[in-house]
Amino acid sequence: MSPLAPLKASSLYFTPLPPSHVVPAGKESHGRYMLTIPWNRVSGWGQPKIAARQELSFDPLAGVLQYAVTCFEGMKCYKTDNGDLRLFRPDKNFDRLKRSAARLGLPHDWDNDELLELFAKLVALEAPIVPDTDGSSLYLRPTLLETSEGFGIKDDAFAAEALLYVATTLNLGKGLYPSSDGEGKGIKLDACKEFIRAWPGGTGSYKLGANYGTVNISKKPGYAMSLWLHGKEDFISEAGAMNVFIIKQAEDGFLEFITMSLDGGIVLPGVTRFSLIQLLTEHAEGKKDFPLEGMPKNVRVVERDISMPEIISSLENGTLKGMFGCGTGVVVVTVGEIQYQGQTYTIPANPLIKLLRDTITGIQRGKIDEGRGWSFKVPEWDVEGKEGQDEEKVVA
Amino acid sequence: MSPLAPLKASSLYFTPLPPSHVVPAGKESHGRYMLTIPWNRVSGWGQPKIAARQELSFDPLAGVLQYAVTCFEGMKCYKTDNGDLRLFRPDKNFDRLKRSAARLGLPHDWDNDELLELFAKLVALEAPIVPDTDGSSLYLRPTLLETSEGFGIKDDAFAAEALLYVATTLNLGKGLYPSSDGEGKGIKLDACKEFIRAWPGGTGSYKLGANYGTVNISKKPGYAMSLWLHGKEDFISEAGAMNVFIIKQAEDGFLEFITMSLDGGIVLPGVTRFSLIQLLTEHAEGKKDFPLEGMPKNVRVVERDISMPEIISSLENGTLKGMFGCGTGVVVVTVGEIQYQGQTYTIPANPLIKLLRDTITGIQRGKIDEGRGWSFKVPEWDVEGKEGQDEEKVVA
Repeated sequence: MSPLAPLKASSLYFTPLPPSHVVPAGKESHGRYMLTIPWNRVSGWGQPKIAARQELSFDPLAGVLQYAVTCFEGMKCYKTDNGDLRLFRPDKNFDRLKRSAARLGLPHDWDNDELLELFAKLVALEAPIVPDTDGSSLYLRPTLLETSEGFGIKDDAFAAEALLYVATTLNLGKGLYPSSDGEGKGIKLDACKEFIRAWPGGTGSYKLGANYGTVNISKKPGYAMSLWLHGKEDFISEAGAMNVFIIKQAEDGFLEFITMSLDGGIVLPGVTRFSLIQLLTEHAEGKKDFPLEGMPKNVRVVERDISMPEIISSLENGTLKGMFGCGTGVVVVTVGEIQYQGQTYTIPANPLIKLLRDTITGIQRGKIDEGRGWSFKVPEWDVEGKEGQDEEKVVA
Repeated sequence: MSPLAPLKASSLYFTPLPPSHVVPAGKESHGRYMLTIPWNRVSGWGQPKIAARQELSFDPLAGVLQYAVTCFEGMKCYKTDNGDLRLFRPDKNFDRLKRSAARLGLPHDWDNDELLELFAKLVALEAPIVPDTDGSSLYLRPTLLETSEGFGIKDDAFAAEALLYVATTLNLGKGLYPSSDGEGKGIKLDACKEFIRAWPGGTGSYKLGANYGTVNISKKPGYAMSLWLHGKEDFISEAGAMNVFIIKQAEDGFLEFITMSLDGGIVLPGVTRFSLIQLLTEHAEGKKDFPLEGMPKNVRVVERDISMPEIISSLENGTLKGMFGCGTGVVVVTVGEIQYQGQTYTIPANPLIKLLRDTITGIQRGKIDEGRGWSFKVPEWDVEGKEGQDEEKVVA
C-alpha cells in the first residue's frame, strides 16, 4: 500500500465566482465561497478546492446521514481597524478537530500549518464582506464527516471516505444576547434535569454534532439556553454550548474564578475557556499582567465541579460574585438569572465580566497585543497566482 | 396559518427507471428505487416520490450535517415461498420513528396506514430482486432528518424543513454472523467500559443516528460487537445494536428469559424484543401456545437489570443456560463468549435459542401464522395506474 497523501495547501484548486454568480435566496448572510477537502482511506487527502458555496451531495446511506459521523469547529475571522483579517488561536481549533475526528473514526492526521494556509485563503477571499465593528465577525464552520456508507457491520470502525469542508456566515449571534456586551442584566438560563447533555464515558468533551441535536428540544421559551446538570448532586456541565464560570469570594480574601474541570470528560475544552484561564493564572502568578486595567491581584482560577446547591448557598451567604458563560459564539456573556426546580435565582452582576469580554474581543480584533501570539494575521492573497491552473484527478 | 398538509399516499409521484438506467458502480447490492417525502413547517408534508435511487443534496449547514438531527428505522421485506412480499409489524417501526423524531424536533405526525401504503409500493417495485431464501430479505432503511439549517441559536428547537426517505439494500448481515442460525458456538462480545453507549436522561431508548456513530470506534478485532456496560454495577444495556436476553434456571424450576427493562430509558425498545416477550408470555400464561413445538411450559419472562457479575456468578453456579441478542438485523443470535476485564467467559449453548429464531423467521416469511396479524402482506401494485401523472408543485 502506497503511503497516504498528506493534506497539501499547495495543491489548492481555486474556482473564482463566475461573473454571472447570484447568491441564492435565503443565503445572503453566508460567505460566498466554500473550502472542501476530500479524503479516502486508500489514497489519503485529495485536492483542496475553493469554489462558490453550494449544496453537498451524499449517498442516502452515508455515515453522516445514518449514524451522525460528523464533527465540527467554531472559529471567527475578525477585521482590525487597519483592515487586517485575524483568526484567534486557530491551532487550538485544529487540534480539537483532530481529537473529535479520532473519536468518530474519521481522518485526523494533517499538518495544521497546511490547513491554516487554506483557511487563510478562504477568508482572504471574503475580506470585502468581513465586518469591522466590535462584536461582529465572519464565522467559520469547519466540518468533518463521513461520506462513505456507514451502514451495517464494518470490519473496523474507520470511515472509508470523508470530507472536510468550511462554510462561513456573517454576524452569528449578533443581537441574540441583549446582554452579551457584559452590561445589562445578563441572560436567563433554565437548569435542565430532564435531558442530560453528557456523562462519563460519553462524548461531552468532543465537538460532535451528536452532542447538539440530541438536546435541542430542551430549550424553553423565554430562556437563552439550558443549563445542563448531571449527577445526583446537580453538577453543572455547560450552558447551551458554552463553558461556565462562577466568581466567588474565598475565605482568604481571594476572588476565585471557578469552572468545571475537564477530567470527567463531560465538558468541552473551550478555546475561550483555556484563554481566560491562562490570562488570569499568569496575572495571578505575576508572570504577565492582565492585558486590561482593573483585574485585582488576588485572584485565583479553580477547576472543580460546581453544583446548583452550591450556587444557591453562595447566593444566600453573599459569596457568589457573578457568573458567566464563554465560547467562540458568545465570547463572554453574563448569566443574570437561573430557573431551577421552580425557583428563580438572580445572580449578581460583576464588572469584571465585561473586563474579560473586552480583553478577549480586544485581542481578537488586534487592539490588544497580549504577547503570546494568539491573534493570527491572515496574509493577503493574490489570486492571480498559480492556483486554479491544474485540477488534479483525485483517486476515489 | 393554514392547516399543515397531512402525509398522503394518494399524491405519490412515481418515476419509472428510464430504459437507459445503469446501476452505479458499488451500488449493485442496493434497491434500485428510493422513496422521498419532504416536509416543511409552513406547509406540512409535501409530495411523496418514488424514483431511481440517487444522492441527496443538503446545504452545508443543514441540521443533519452539523448537529446530527437524524433518526432511522430498520425493517425487512421477506418473500414467501408463494412469492408474496411480507413486512413484519411495520406499525411498530412507524411508531418508534415518531418517538425518535419527536425527541429531535422533527415532524412526527402522520397516519401509519398512509406511510405503509407508500412503503408497500416501494417494495412492490423491488419484488423481482427480493430474495426468497431463509435468512435473506430486502432491508429497508427509513430515515428522517433535518434538511434546514440547524445552525446558531433558533427561537425554538423544531426543524424548519425535513426529509423522510427510504433506501433499501439486499442481504444485510448475511454471512456476518457464522452462528446466526442459532447453531455453532455463537458470537463473541467484548464487554466495553471505556465507552458508555447510553445513560439515564440520554437518548439510548431512541433510534437516533447519534447513538451509533459515537460508539463505532469501540469495536475490537475478533469480536462481533461490543457488549455495552453502564453504572458501577457493570449493568448490560445492549450488545452492538441488539437487545440482549439471558436464559436462567430459577429456584422454583422455571426457566427465566431475562432482559433489561425499558424503564431507565437506556435500552432501545426493539420490535424483535417485544415480539419474543409477547410470544413467551402468552405461552407461559396459557393464552396461546408458542408457535413451534419444544418450548417448555414452565418459562417466565423477567424484565430487570443484568450485570456482568451476575453473568459470572450464574456461570459458576450453573444456573446460566444461555444468552442471545435479538434485533431486526440479526433476528436472534447466540452469544457464545464474552471478554470482560481480561477474562474470557464461555456461555453455554441452548437449543431454545434456535427455536426462537426459527419462530421469528418463520413468522416473517409467512410459514408460521402466529394468529396476531404480525406479518403484513404487501399488495401487488399495478404501476400502470394513475401514479406518475401529476407532479405537484410543493411549497418550499
